[in-house]
Amino acid sequence: MSYDFPLKILFKHCDPAGIVFFPRYFEMINDCVEAFFDDVVGIPFEELLITAGVPTAEIRTQFKAPSRHGDRIVLTLECQKVGRSSLDLNITAKSLSGEVRFVANSTLVYVDSAGRPKTWPDHMKQKFTEELKGPN
Amino acid sequence: MSYDFPLKILFKHCDPAGIVFFPRYFEMINDCVEAFFDDVVGIPFEELLITAGVPTAEIRTQFKAPSRHGDRIVLTLECQKVGRSSLDLNITAKSLSGEVRFVANSTLVYVDSAGRPKTWPDHMKQKFTEELKGPN
Amino acid sequence: MSYDFPLKILFKHCDPAGIVFFPRYFEMINDCVEAFFDDVVGIPFEELLITAGVPTAEIRTQFKAPSRHGDRIVLTLECQKVGRSSLDLNITAKSLSGEVRFVANSTLVYVDSAGRPKTWPDHMKQKFTEELKGPN
Amino acid sequence: MSYDFPLKILFKHCDPAGIVFFPRYFEMINDCVEAFFDDVVGIPFEELLITAGVPTAEIRTQFKAPSRHGDRIVLTLECQKVGRSSLDLNITAKSLSGEVRFVANSTLVYVDSAGRPKTWPDHMKQKFTEELKGPN
Repeated sequence: MSYDFPLKILFKHCDPAGIVFFPRYFEMINDCVEAFFDDVVGIPFEELLITAGVPTAEIRTQFKAPSRHGDRIVLTLECQKVGRSSLDLNITAKSLSGEVRFVANSTLVYVDSAGRPKTWPDHMKQKFTEELKGPN
Repeated sequence: MSYDFPLKILFKHCDPAGIVFFPRYFEMINDCVEAFFDDVVGIPFEELLITAGVPTAEIRTQFKAPSRHGDRIVLTLECQKVGRSSLDLNITAKSLSGEVRFVANSTLVYVDSAGRPKTWPDHMKQKFTEELKGPN
Repeated sequence: MSYDFPLKILFKHCDPAGIVFFPRYFEMINDCVEAFFDDVVGIPFEELLITAGVPTAEIRTQFKAPSRHGDRIVLTLECQKVGRSSLDLNITAKSLSGEVRFVANSTLVYVDSAGRPKTWPDHMKQKFTEELKGPN
Repeated sequence: MSYDFPLKILFKHCDPAGIVFFPRYFEMINDCVEAFFDDVVGIPFEELLITAGVPTAEIRTQFKAPSRHGDRIVLTLECQKVGRSSLDLNITAKSLSGEVRFVANSTLVYVDSAGRPKTWPDHMKQKFTEELKGPN
C-alpha cells in the first residue's frame, strides 16, 4: 500500500530560476510524513511529539526533473522496512503525467524526549507493517 | 583543501523540540555552496545564475546528532570529484568541540538556462581541481 | 463577500516555544492571496506572473493570540479598496472556535515586469469590485 | 544609538521575479532582533527563551524598493519606546548606496512561559533606555 499526498507548486516554493528551491522539497517531504501519521497511522504529530520525537536520521534524494510554479505533483509514500525504533520510507514525487520529479529514501527514528531511540508501540508498528504488506 | 563556513544556530532554524528542523540544514548547505562559489571559485551566484544554473541533482545526508538553538557549528565543504558538468561535494557539519552534526554528499550539475548540462568553464574546473588536490 | 482559506498548523510552522514562528504567517498570507487569485479572480499566479507582478507594498499585522501545532485555523480574505493599480486586503485568521489569531492589512500593487505600477485589467478590477460589494 | 545588521541577499531569499520574497524579510528582521539581544542587550535568545518569550505583537512594514540577489543591505534597529513589558522597535533596511528597501515598526512583548506579559528586568530595561537616549 502507499499513501498519496498531492500538492500544487506555489510561488513560495520557487527560486529565481522559476523552479522549486530544493530545501523546499524537504518541507514537502516533512508535510507528507506528518499527514501520513495523521491519516494512516492515526496518531497526529501534535500528539505524538508531546512525549516523543521522530527525527530523520538519514535521507537520500535524487532530483530527476525540475518542478515549476503551478505544477501539480503527487508525493507517494511507501513503508520499506520497520525496525525496532526505525522506519525506512520511500517518497517519490511525480507530475500528473507521471514524470518523476524526485525520489527520496529516508530513515526515521522513534525517540523519547531525551532523544534516545525507543521501541515503536505495537499499534504503530502494526500500521507500518500493514503498509509494507498490502498491494497498492 | 577545504572551505569552512561557520554559523550560529538561530531561533528560526529550530522546531518545537528545540533542535534544528532538518529542511533548514539544506538551506545552510545551499548558503555554504553559495559562499564557496563567491569566496573560493570567484564567481558569485548572482552573476553565475544570470546565464546558467547549478541545481543539486542528488544529495545524501546523515544526521548524526542534533543541533540546538545557540550552538555554533562549522560546515566544511570539500570537492570530491569534478566531472564534465558535475561536481561532487562533501559537506560535514561539526560543533566547535568536534561533534559531527551531519554529513552530506551532494552532486551539483552545471546547466544552461534551458536546464541542459553544459561543460564547466576551464577557470572554474581549475578551481575545483585545485580544491581536490591540496592538503587541508 | 469574503474568501476562506482553511489550514492546519504543521510542525514546520512552529518554533521552540511550540507556537507559530511569525514569518511563517506571512507565507500563509501569501498562499491565501495566491489561492484567492486562482479560485476567485480566475487568474492563477503562475500565469499572471509571467508578464507582471503583484508585490506587497505594505502590510500591517497584529498578532492577537498564538497558534499551536495541530490547530486548525481559517484565514478570511476581504477586498477593502481597489485603486488604479493597487488592492487593499484585510486578512483575518481565526481558530475554529472563533478566536482571532491575527489581523493583517496589506496593499498589493500590480506592476509590469520592470516593476512599474500598471492599471489592473478590467476583468480583474471587476472581480475585486464584486468582492467589495456583496454581503458575505 | 542604533544597531546595524548587515547582510547579503542570498539565492534562498529570492522568488521567481528575482527579488526578495517578502516573508523572508521577516526572517531577516527576526535575525536582527536576535543579534541585537545577543550583541547589545547581552542576553542571547538561547538563554532568554528558556524561561520567557519575546513574541512580536504587532509589525507594520512598508516595502519601498525591491532587493535583488547579491545586494548588500543593512538593517538598522532603533529602540523607539520601552513599556513595562513591551518594546517598540524601528528597523529600516537600506542598500549600501542608501536606498531604503523597507521600514518596519514592531512591538515586542516580554512574556513568561505561559505567554503572560511580565515586567522587563531592570538591566534589560536599562539597556533599551540607553539605546533610546544616545545619539547614533
